[in-house]
Amino acid sequence: MIGFDDRGLLLGDGLFETVLARAGELVDLDAHLARMADGCAVLGLPAPDPAEAEALMRRAVSEAGLATARAAVRLTLTAGPGGRGLDRPQTPKPALFATAAASPAPTALARLRISTVRRNEGSPASRLKTLSYLDNVLARREAVAAGADEAVMLNGQGEIACAAAANLFWITGGAMFTPALACGVLDGIVRRRVMAATAVREVAVGVETLAGAEAVFLTNSLIRVREVASLDGRRFEPSARVAEIARLVGQ
Amino acid sequence: MIGFDDRGLLLGDGLFETVLARAGELVDLDAHLARMADGCAVLGLPAPDPAEAEALMRRAVSEAGLATARAAVRLTLTAGPGGRGLDRPQTPKPALFATAAASPAPTALARLRISTVRRNEGSPASRLKTLSYLDNVLARREAVAAGADEAVMLNGQGEIACAAAANLFWITGGAMFTPALACGVLDGIVRRRVMAATAVREVAVGVETLAGAEAVFLTNSLIRVREVASLDGRRFEPSARVAEIARLVGQ
Repeated sequence: MIGFDDRGLLLGDGLFETVLARAGELVDLDAHLARMADGCAVLGLPAPDPAEAEALMRRAVSEAGLATARAAVRLTLTAGPGGRGLDRPQTPKPALFATAAASPAPTALARLRISTVRRNEGSPASRLKTLSYLDNVLARREAVAAGADEAVMLNGQGEIACAAAANLFWITGGAMFTPALACGVLDGIVRRRVMAATAVREVAVGVETLAGAEAVFLTNSLIRVREVASLDGRRFEPSARVAEIARLVGQ
Repeated sequence: MIGFDDRGLLLGDGLFETVLARAGELVDLDAHLARMADGCAVLGLPAPDPAEAEALMRRAVSEAGLATARAAVRLTLTAGPGGRGLDRPQTPKPALFATAAASPAPTALARLRISTVRRNEGSPASRLKTLSYLDNVLARREAVAAGADEAVMLNGQGEIACAAAANLFWITGGAMFTPALACGVLDGIVRRRVMAATAVREVAVGVETLAGAEAVFLTNSLIRVREVASLDGRRFEPSARVAEIARLVGQ
């Protein structure tokens, strides 16, 4: 339980990581903890102790009875108790907790919809997994209400940024592209894996680019690589190239 | 206490109001509750029962021993417990709570600094008091680190929006101006009072406009009207017009 004076609860002041657990293995744990530590530096918060974070996550998996399952483990760090208003106490005392839930690998292809909710590339928070995730909630909600599964978010300049809960890639003319981090994009850990496995150009381009794509796919730590079936009604054919990337990254 | 599965805590999915209590009177309570209900409609959440909200706020004031003091009463509504991921449960069950703290009227003039953190006018959340307030926290933090009291936030187009925790007004050539709501601005309750008391033009203008202003002031429900002494080092003379507005709005 968290107190009514917690700054994560009151102001979205904090960070999270979502880690895939596969039969008890915390996939890419070091990369997730390093990313949270980097985010803490941006927000001006002390980073969590890696051993404590890992112990919390392992306990959450075990207590949820998911030691042999495919599970989503969420590590949440709040700025801690905070007095009134925007200003943090002189010495923030962050709260850290972990929860776990079953997370089967997605089987269906994704149907995307362009969101009217924009990504705020003018804030460092747009490149972090923060507790201020309402824009993503609203974008997803809008997509689901329209019969889609996931939203594509553009930034304030109209450039493609990402999905509500995933990084976005596409293939055009045989070349692979993804929005640059400066567009307001989380430095996704599976995004990094894809970029290490194959040539990907980071770009800042408008949404019209996607209409001409041969294939589109999403990545995040839970779905890994998920191919896109349609975008605002335009359909994409299954791509052998995306299937190959999915195999390389692993479910 | 709030559970680890609360969507306000995990995703900043919720709203708040900050109400001034003066010797037990909840100033502009109806306007605050109406604004929260309007925000709930935007977010797709059920609005709180006004009588329950008022009772929680009165109890918070009383339990904090502030029944005869000037106090800040914060009413927080979260989207409630939520399962995993961005999608809300079919029937959200919001959590509602109130806290109170002493809040003396500010006496010093404000020193402002232009923030590098932008306001996301491309999200409906920029016009609401949401639990996803990290951009405001970061803007304020940057201002305080630079020796100022409060930040001026521009939106993604470079237009003046607001302060981190207040609406912004200025006087140029004897006329009074404030950023339009479309710039990514909360429809502040004291902002409305100022606009009802005197002619104010709502504008979408760049930050260079402020450099030529004769006077600048901030409004919110707690500070009411607070005059600005300086902006990024440029000093403003005390303004009889701002003092008159402050008297009209009341401390």
